[in-house]
Amino acid sequence: ADVKKIAVIAGDGIGPEVVAEAIKAMKKTEEVFGYGFEFEHGLFGGIAIDEKGTPLPEDTLAMCKRSDAVLLGAVGGPKWDNNSKELRPETGLLGIRKALGLFSNIRPANVFDCLKEASTLKPEVLEGTDLIVVRELTGGIYFGEKFRREGENGQEAVDTCVYNVNEIERIVRQAFEIARTRSKRLASVDKANVLETSRLWRETVIRIATDYPDVELEHVLVDNCAMQLLRRPASFDVIVTENMFGDILSDEAAMLTGSIGMLSSASLGEGAFGLYEPVHGSAPDIAGQGIANPIATILSVALMFRLTFGYHDAAEAIERAVKEVLDAGHRTGDIAVDKSKAIGTTAMGDLIVNAI
Amino acid sequence: ADVKKIAVIAGDGIGPEVVAEAIKAMKKTEEVFGYGFEFEHGLFGGIAIDEKGTPLPEDTLAMCKRSDAVLLGAVGGPKWDNNSKELRPETGLLGIRKALGLFSNIRPANVFDCLKEASTLKPEVLEGTDLIVVRELTGGIYFGEKFRREGENGQEAVDTCVYNVNEIERIVRQAFEIARTRSKRLASVDKANVLETSRLWRETVIRIATDYPDVELEHVLVDNCAMQLLRRPASFDVIVTENMFGDILSDEAAMLTGSIGMLSSASLGEGAFGLYEPVHGSAPDIAGQGIANPIATILSVALMFRLTFGYHDAAEAIERAVKEVLDAGHRTGDIAVDKSKAIGTTAMGDLIVNAI
Ligand SMILES: CC(C)[C@H](C(=O)O)[C@@H](O)C(=O)O
Ligand SMILES: CC(C)[C@H](C(=O)O)[C@@H](O)C(=O)O
Repeated sequence: ADVKKIAVIAGDGIGPEVVAEAIKAMKKTEEVFGYGFEFEHGLFGGIAIDEKGTPLPEDTLAMCKRSDAVLLGAVGGPKWDNNSKELRPETGLLGIRKALGLFSNIRPANVFDCLKEASTLKPEVLEGTDLIVVRELTGGIYFGEKFRREGENGQEAVDTCVYNVNEIERIVRQAFEIARTRSKRLASVDKANVLETSRLWRETVIRIATDYPDVELEHVLVDNCAMQLLRRPASFDVIVTENMFGDILSDEAAMLTGSIGMLSSASLGEGAFGLYEPVHGSAPDIAGQGIANPIATILSVALMFRLTFGYHDAAEAIERAVKEVLDAGHRTGDIAVDKSKAIGTTAMGDLIVNAI
Repeated sequence: ADVKKIAVIAGDGIGPEVVAEAIKAMKKTEEVFGYGFEFEHGLFGGIAIDEKGTPLPEDTLAMCKRSDAVLLGAVGGPKWDNNSKELRPETGLLGIRKALGLFSNIRPANVFDCLKEASTLKPEVLEGTDLIVVRELTGGIYFGEKFRREGENGQEAVDTCVYNVNEIERIVRQAFEIARTRSKRLASVDKANVLETSRLWRETVIRIATDYPDVELEHVLVDNCAMQLLRRPASFDVIVTENMFGDILSDEAAMLTGSIGMLSSASLGEGAFGLYEPVHGSAPDIAGQGIANPIATILSVALMFRLTFGYHDAAEAIERAVKEVLDAGHRTGDIAVDKSKAIGTTAMGDLIVNAI
């Protein structure tokens, strides 16, 4: 059989706990659908800093490179927040994105029926919200030259935002392709009235749009997008934008759904290879207590099955299992209305695995 | 008497209509409180492009420079959107900020009782929201070098984000001072885990904070701030941040109050001089119809009275007059529940003027 190699990076905080449940779900699909997975584990983030003196050890990167997909838990925590740049978990995160060529971050933001009330938005505004933010992930101000210098007015800091036409083109094409499989609406977000990179971005989008006449395109300025997400979230389908704007808008979009604890994400490169992780963080405050919600990580597996392996049957089975368990009223503490009835990480994982 | 010189830039779209009502309110305070104003008008934005071939004519800038404060309506519109950079209204906006040294943009985001329902957020989440975004306005990626070049991978665009320690210090001190007059809580927003300018920003904030031990300080990453504004808007008091983040977050904050059509703003420099304008845009779709809401512009006058002239009595009188008129049930079309009962721009202006 075709055995897929999965690089597992459990990471920090609740990472190991939620990843364990996701692996259980993958193993269940081996039984049910006959797929085969081989798991290899590597250190990354804070734990790698502690044990290896670097957030992204060479052997972890090598492990990812020889794998078919990466499953990531979460990284970071207050323990490492005041470290110097080279010894911070997020430096590992930026490093792995660049080293693996993961130029595209796919962040679905949709509303779970059982969590509608968890949103701070009015339910009628949220109704029908189901969007995807496609964020450029290896360019822009994140990766441009950065330095300090002495200027006329004392010390100065400089960050450089650079985009070339190819970097823009590949992410924009991917967004158009995704829009085609959905409601065929694409919002391209930039700040073309101020930034040169945004003007190149917009020109490129307009040029590529001629290849996608079936997709309805709108250009939205980033400040306006931050507003429109609040005013008419359901009117968006696919949103494509550069790295920094995508960081801000994808978090805003996730939060407004009220489902942030349940959302998954994919980071993709040229081929089928991808890195999959929950949107939520490492939640150090509840780590090790067995109460974290594993659903976002389990759903990240479903995303992996769809986008990297084309295992649509198993992806659907996982998504259906999650829905079934939620519909039956089972909740972890973070999403429980009656906290006294909340179940733990393993119990939630078991229920979903059984429902697959 | 001490006559204050007011430079009036009505601008485009509904600008002239709303500015006319604000001037009426100022004239009423001459009668009631004995203040004196001298108004001079200048072209700016789209209309200046049409009539003078540039969005910021020399004589308009000179007029602003010899004035004590500037009252601005609104600029821009689809007519000029596809112009080259030098012939676009926003180029005038960036130019006037820089030329007048207006390094600080003050954007209050508070909730009007009568508009609580207009927000897409749940009323209980919004309850008590009353924050101010202090945005750095003449630095960062807006004003850094920007250019195109041929790179290895085709055409590249570059924007440069630069901050020196003085630029950061003056805006941060101002934000601390403002926080002191309010609930004494300051949130400084940056992306210190990625950007060098943000690291300098944060270091500077931490250093200056020692002069303000009475103000409670928190550092919030920009992506997290975009989320927290949605989750706990009422927990913010003063938010201070750099130019680009401030552009996005101030619009998000304004929109979530539901009161965006009523919000005013101030742009300040070193001294008392300031430029005052409504947050809303030029609304070309309703321009010339006499139906625009003049309240945000009238409230911008109140802000001018407080921040530039120290005319607290007149500022309060204007704010009280607005509240009285709204409490009596009068509404322009944009904020009317029953649109058939909506009144026009002049009628709203007259009611407020009479109530002063
Ligand atoms: C931790 C940080 C560097 C990272 C980013 O800004 O990309 C995070 O916010 C994210 O969105 O994955
Ligand atoms: C028109 C544009 C250049 C401007 C900005 O980004 O500063 C506007 O969005 C604002 O916030 O005043």
